[in-house]
Amino acid sequence: MQKVYVLCTGGTIEKVYLESSGSVQNIHGKIDRYLQRLRLPGLRVQTLRLMNKDSLEMTDADRYQILRAVRKKLKKAAPIIVTHGTDTVVETGLFLKRNLPHLQVPIILTGAMTPLGFEQSDGLQNLTESLLAARILQPGVYLVIHNQVFPIDRVRKDRERARFVWKRAGGRSQMQEAG
Amino acid sequence: MQKVYVLCTGGTIEKVYLESSGSVQNIHGKIDRYLQRLRLPGLRVQTLRLMNKDSLEMTDADRYQILRAVRKKLKKAAPIIVTHGTDTVVETGLFLKRNLPHLQVPIILTGAMTPLGFEQSDGLQNLTESLLAARILQPGVYLVIHNQVFPIDRVRKDRERARFVWKRAGGRSQMQEAG
Amino acid sequence: MQKVYVLCTGGTIEKVYLESSGSVQNIHGKIDRYLQRLRLPGLRVQTLRLMNKDSLEMTDADRYQILRAVRKKLKKAAPIIVTHGTDTVVETGLFLKRNLPHLQVPIILTGAMTPLGFEQSDGLQNLTESLLAARILQPGVYLVIHNQVFPIDRVRKDRERARFVWKRAGGRSQMQEAG
Amino acid sequence: MQKVYVLCTGGTIEKVYLESSGSVQNIHGKIDRYLQRLRLPGLRVQTLRLMNKDSLEMTDADRYQILRAVRKKLKKAAPIIVTHGTDTVVETGLFLKRNLPHLQVPIILTGAMTPLGFEQSDGLQNLTESLLAARILQPGVYLVIHNQVFPIDRVRKDRERARFVWKRAGGRSQMQEAG
Repeated sequence: MQKVYVLCTGGTIEKVYLESSGSVQNIHGKIDRYLQRLRLPGLRVQTLRLMNKDSLEMTDADRYQILRAVRKKLKKAAPIIVTHGTDTVVETGLFLKRNLPHLQVPIILTGAMTPLGFEQSDGLQNLTESLLAARILQPGVYLVIHNQVFPIDRVRKDRERARFVWKRAGGRSQMQEAG
Repeated sequence: MQKVYVLCTGGTIEKVYLESSGSVQNIHGKIDRYLQRLRLPGLRVQTLRLMNKDSLEMTDADRYQILRAVRKKLKKAAPIIVTHGTDTVVETGLFLKRNLPHLQVPIILTGAMTPLGFEQSDGLQNLTESLLAARILQPGVYLVIHNQVFPIDRVRKDRERARFVWKRAGGRSQMQEAG
Repeated sequence: MQKVYVLCTGGTIEKVYLESSGSVQNIHGKIDRYLQRLRLPGLRVQTLRLMNKDSLEMTDADRYQILRAVRKKLKKAAPIIVTHGTDTVVETGLFLKRNLPHLQVPIILTGAMTPLGFEQSDGLQNLTESLLAARILQPGVYLVIHNQVFPIDRVRKDRERARFVWKRAGGRSQMQEAG
Repeated sequence: MQKVYVLCTGGTIEKVYLESSGSVQNIHGKIDRYLQRLRLPGLRVQTLRLMNKDSLEMTDADRYQILRAVRKKLKKAAPIIVTHGTDTVVETGLFLKRNLPHLQVPIILTGAMTPLGFEQSDGLQNLTESLLAARILQPGVYLVIHNQVFPIDRVRKDRERARFVWKRAGGRSQMQEAG
């Protein structure tokens, strides 16, 4: 039986509509509920909730918490998926890459532009893709989203088009340099 | 072939998730798209867009516009459904009732607590109920929502429980007195 | 707190897709699961499973069983919904009407052309309509489906168009005469 | 802009519920409609309908037709997905493998246990996985389904458990030997 860890941190993919305020927020997780819609014979998925935050509100302390959780799970030699808000998912991914130089499994970051369960959501697509990518990618840190597999240092968010695009190799992000 | 008019004014039932801002807003209508999921043989549904507003932002001028549209359609002797934000739907309904004393068809106001197409939305339920109510209710002004049929002067919104509840007969709302 | 009984007998509305045979059959009920998607504040819904049959396979004994269950629940003075296969729902309804001459609540039969949960299903629409009709109809036996309310002796199924249509008053079905 | 071909042959994934007969059949395709629910920036998906058959009814002539279509598209050097009934998908896959010895792109067969759009369908999951696999797998013939990637000569259907399982390397199917 193969295994995969899913570390949940919040972000749009898990936002819920709050009737009292008419807004969408990170209140309670829902990755687990949607994973149950997938058929995953022969795979043991273990989800862990680290936090439930809009990624614009993530602090350095939050990223260290994610790093510690990833390090702990790496001892099990199973692939790791991190669900994350798309606004700073690349920063978190680069931070993990810098601090985890000798990976033996793939670490896959993913998220969504529209929350799971909302019309036209890309959330279940991205979870499905990440779970397949976890099975077949080489060790490394990746962003998997919208049928695309980006090594984490080759991607940036194009906010206006609500998608991720390739970045020239060698480009460096601020967080990476500060890390 | 029977006929029913659906006058759309916005409100939560038609809100959409905006990826660029991560918020829900009234941008483009969607009542029509969801009505197509219903089987309505022998019924001609004509939808009209009056505005697309959060009902907290509705002005007196907006309510007069709704009143004029309702008056115009009343000449056709067909039931009228008005989709509306729930925050001020009762005010609008009381305003219509005050100004339309000799109704010969039912006027049904409805809306939703969660937008159409979001998980756990009550929007399609309320549209379905309103379309059936339009077939069988006596002339009058009603709020139809969540399997309940309220004469418009007998209902108030219970915000904390995100539902509508019965109001003692004879209770008057501010808008009605000012009208 | 108002109450309504939902007596489940099977039919297309509850059919499930069987992967082993590639067919749809009445195996396990699903009315309850779909009722949970509706918001029904102030209403207590009690579902009872009588049988789970394609209505073409219903026998006279089955209809007597339905009659006995309805009679028992009538003592509670709450409306009754009977979910049923569409092929013989009119026969069952006429049988109930003949045998229950002094009704004080509405008895509503409903069903679906496509099973609950299949794309383009009319099942949840018909359940939603029946629950509203149960609140507002006068005593009598009705078929409620596709935004239509038929007194049971005024309706017949139009198989080719997959819908129900009005029947001339005074028309009699074989089952009614034999009853 | 990358490209992928999707060759549709029918099977459970495309079955529809027929109201007139109460059965599920291959009548009209629906792969295209469901592909539109996925976000595939930077990917040009071209679907081609070859046939729309339950795979138990596929003949040798049908498999030759699939082979010819695959050969034609291979000239474009883009990955190819073949949607197919699960009962004989392995036979078709082995037939393609035998007859296409020098592949330079992946050929991915997929299907579903429950039709697209039916509750608990695995169809969209399998399409999503196949489209990601088409991006990253090495040349070869594969079955991609339920988060699993099987080289086509290493898989068999376990009918009772409605899933696919690994087969010992070197095991040969009848079709392959006859081919």
